[in-house]
Amino acid sequence: AQLGTNATSALAVNVALSALVFAVTLRLVPALAATFVAAGQFGHDVNKPDRPPIPEGLGVVCGVVYLVALFVFIPVPFVDHFFGDRSSFPLETLAVLLSALLSICCMIFLGFADDVLDLRWRHKVLLPTLATVPLLMVYYVTYNKTHVVIPIPLRFALGTTIELGMFYYVFMSLLAVFCTNSINILAGINGVEAGQSLVIALAIAANSYIQLVSTDCCVQENLFTLYLILPFIATTAALLYHNWYPSRVFVGDTYCYFAGMTFAVVGILGHFSKTMVLFFVPQLFNFALSLPQLFRWVECPRHRLPRLNKDTGLLEPSRASLASGTWLGRQCVTILSALGLVRVYYKDTAKPSYDGAEVSNFTLINVLLLWFGPQREDTLTKLVLAVQVLTTLVAFVVRYPLASIVYNPL
Amino acid sequence: AQLGTNATSALAVNVALSALVFAVTLRLVPALAATFVAAGQFGHDVNKPDRPPIPEGLGVVCGVVYLVALFVFIPVPFVDHFFGDRSSFPLETLAVLLSALLSICCMIFLGFADDVLDLRWRHKVLLPTLATVPLLMVYYVTYNKTHVVIPIPLRFALGTTIELGMFYYVFMSLLAVFCTNSINILAGINGVEAGQSLVIALAIAANSYIQLVSTDCCVQENLFTLYLILPFIATTAALLYHNWYPSRVFVGDTYCYFAGMTFAVVGILGHFSKTMVLFFVPQLFNFALSLPQLFRWVECPRHRLPRLNKDTGLLEPSRASLASGTWLGRQCVTILSALGLVRVYYKDTAKPSYDGAEVSNFTLINVLLLWFGPQREDTLTKLVLAVQVLTTLVAFVVRYPLASIVYNPL
Ligand SMILES: [Mg+2]
Ligand SMILES: [Mg+2]
Repeated sequence: AQLGTNATSALAVNVALSALVFAVTLRLVPALAATFVAAGQFGHDVNKPDRPPIPEGLGVVCGVVYLVALFVFIPVPFVDHFFGDRSSFPLETLAVLLSALLSICCMIFLGFADDVLDLRWRHKVLLPTLATVPLLMVYYVTYNKTHVVIPIPLRFALGTTIELGMFYYVFMSLLAVFCTNSINILAGINGVEAGQSLVIALAIAANSYIQLVSTDCCVQENLFTLYLILPFIATTAALLYHNWYPSRVFVGDTYCYFAGMTFAVVGILGHFSKTMVLFFVPQLFNFALSLPQLFRWVECPRHRLPRLNKDTGLLEPSRASLASGTWLGRQCVTILSALGLVRVYYKDTAKPSYDGAEVSNFTLINVLLLWFGPQREDTLTKLVLAVQVLTTLVAFVVRYPLASIVYNPL
Repeated sequence: AQLGTNATSALAVNVALSALVFAVTLRLVPALAATFVAAGQFGHDVNKPDRPPIPEGLGVVCGVVYLVALFVFIPVPFVDHFFGDRSSFPLETLAVLLSALLSICCMIFLGFADDVLDLRWRHKVLLPTLATVPLLMVYYVTYNKTHVVIPIPLRFALGTTIELGMFYYVFMSLLAVFCTNSINILAGINGVEAGQSLVIALAIAANSYIQLVSTDCCVQENLFTLYLILPFIATTAALLYHNWYPSRVFVGDTYCYFAGMTFAVVGILGHFSKTMVLFFVPQLFNFALSLPQLFRWVECPRHRLPRLNKDTGLLEPSRASLASGTWLGRQCVTILSALGLVRVYYKDTAKPSYDGAEVSNFTLINVLLLWFGPQREDTLTKLVLAVQVLTTLVAFVVRYPLASIVYNPL
């Protein structure tokens, strides 16, 4: 698409602001680390032999720098309208931007409260749902498309589109809850939260860029997505620099919520919430695999991150006891161990019985350790990120070449 | 004014939600107090003989309950438009509501960060200024009146109105910074932060109610103000119940910022920012009186709250040393002590010299102690609230009967 001079210069301002966001985050995070420790906000890095105390929740610095940058940016896309005809002011675009920032701000706040106060699970589900109300309001008012296009091979049975109505709003609301929590549970080794978020954010930016240069469709949506995602990439990259192995800071729940909500917001208001799901395949896999533990069919320890073998210096799968699990949990263990997704550690290998046995925790990170053997922590993070990159590439194949086969060109 | 059925039922829903907000805050504050203490969020009540530890920053609970209620409320005023003609949807009203919540949410978040991390003064001025950007954007787009009506006696010299342009935006931005910080410095005794905010909020609600029933002007603005201020009154009243002498919880910077920004938001977007200044006269007085200490012309101790005389059980003015002050500071002391606003405590009363002398701290609360003598803490809070109520009554006289003399009827 041919961008107007206004959009081009707004994008240029956004890129410049993002560069500034990167530089400021890079300096502020280490500068504020001591303040966090002084305020009692630190945790121990349990995967290091000496378990050093590490400042926790520095993602809030990212979040604040990001919000400040976007507050400064708010007027930029509207500069043309300031001195001209106010009656043509694009109030819709402003409402979209305001609702996006409102939802993101709420989630950064909630994450910070979680880091400081340790909230309950019901808060972690209820509050993100409420935080999507402004988003969905604005979606309704400005767009309100709630149908799904059916792939050509299925149209003989289902028709060309299905109108989901209310259910589409439920889907979007669930997407927000899923995004905010799913990054938070694919976590626990140095750099993995910020790393996976960086890959997803780069995929989103690439997707919008491809659409902007290759089609004339959805220009406003793709611009909006870039406006929000470029400063996010900048602040995440700077945080990752300090959070990479060996971490000098931890990102905290704040960062995971901030990242998840930013993705949900651009997915919903950028109108590509279904493509967004494709970028979240590793998180979906990790979430689905975790369900037997989240439902307590199998014992769920407080932390499920891999454990350090002090002799080898390598990480190994962490384990849960099978003593307290239910019948259903044991069936899951049988099936998942047949699929190679968990491993059972029998008390007496000669007499394999679940009584007294342990099982590797149900997480993607442990699956990678089962498949590729014990790893150094940084290698393990790179493996997770490799999975994220691979699924993203697959997502692009599904989204573009494959979509043109199973759908008519849009 | 005659309200439509839509506005009447939205107001009814708001009142019902406010009742719920009161009940929820009343229960949640004591329920969460232990969580705050466990997370290290507590302070010592220095005006009690045994200095008990009190959970600090419970204002964040108010803030979250308030935000949740307003998120639930967002769609309510628009119900008529949901199933009708979407092209007539009042996007302006939605943008106003979204920008209001965005600014308030930012300030609750900033306040909470201040409680946890103890921010610097530059953050406390810079971040509220930035948080007003969405407000001012929306003010510009939807209203953009930047003139001031001149009182009749002055019109011969200045004309009927003065166009302030950019400066009016600077004034509104300063108003937000002032509101968020001025409640925070008229603080330090049980119940005074929430108490003064409750009086101001009731004054705002009364002002909007009077206008709604007595004129046809500004119906949308007054409805907007009531929508935002009624849940605020509810959550504040519930917090004050627990914060009243002897406090079981402290409200924290969070509450002061939350209250201040809510006032600034309704003042700006409700288009009565000048009337709002009248409601803040005690805070303005306290701020102006504090300036010699804020500028460090006179020593400024970390805390300027009154100190307990353990023998009498009464509070007395706290003191600052005159040893380190500047020449300018000593001039201020001379003038203010002549006005009865501070008292100098000489080392040797027979030989009055500022060397080695002390002065009562420059706050409204200390002034009241000078004028009315040492007080029990709850009596002192009541005195401050009495001052707030009196100035509010004066504000109504200035705003209504007097305004109709010095201005033409609007
Ligand atoms: Mg937590
Ligand atoms: Mg503080």
